[in-house]
Amino acid sequence: MAKFQVGDRSSLTKTYTAEDVQRFSALSLDRNPLHLDADYAAESFFGQRIVHGMLVASLFSAILGTDLPGEGSIYLGQALNFKAPIYLGDTITASVEIITIRSDKPIITLQTTAVNSEGTIVIDGEAVVKVP
Amino acid sequence: MAKFQVGDRSSLTKTYTAEDVQRFSALSLDRNPLHLDADYAAESFFGQRIVHGMLVASLFSAILGTDLPGEGSIYLGQALNFKAPIYLGDTITASVEIITIRSDKPIITLQTTAVNSEGTIVIDGEAVVKVP
Repeated sequence: MAKFQVGDRSSLTKTYTAEDVQRFSALSLDRNPLHLDADYAAESFFGQRIVHGMLVASLFSAILGTDLPGEGSIYLGQALNFKAPIYLGDTITASVEIITIRSDKPIITLQTTAVNSEGTIVIDGEAVVKVP
Repeated sequence: MAKFQVGDRSSLTKTYTAEDVQRFSALSLDRNPLHLDADYAAESFFGQRIVHGMLVASLFSAILGTDLPGEGSIYLGQALNFKAPIYLGDTITASVEIITIRSDKPIITLQTTAVNSEGTIVIDGEAVVKVP
């Protein structure tokens, strides 16, 4: 476990397009018109189409599986709080930071935070990962 | 809130293909070779390629946004425990069940469970949703 330290961080940025949202709707079966129908969304609480929270939260999985902790890690859990809407065209930066390293087992907890280009937190939460 | 009752349930089933996994890797940026590279995965803990947990967990979002509670609901949070691997070709049934309805605010909590065709729980957790 010496290769990981509390405070280690990694980030990933992606801009979400209408095409991303359409593709994710097909893959996830989440065809809520809030994501797909501009007229419907205009009348909704958010006033416009929003990106699926679970699509954006998948950035955490991407970081965890490919960079920190990286290959060989096993995703045990993820808690997510959807704090603010993500709109089409928004650029989101997801970050993970190690907050605890268990001494008895190779299991670490990471704070997971996604912010938009204005710095507003759109998703936060924690991930639990078993490391190689 | 009278239209929702503790114990109300809804389910959705999907079979995950290699194409689903490739598409989700591109969308999520999660290109962990455990999902994409059969040779790499054969040497891994799981012995074969696995489906992204976040892709399968998106079934919960699909049910919540389209059926129970359905359109107009606002996804506030989702806790996920990844309990067992999901392999290519697996058919997963995701279910949500209302477990608490707040009396002070229009917020409900649902148990979220995904099982494979053998009845093994692959993902469980809870969702928190604001209802119309």
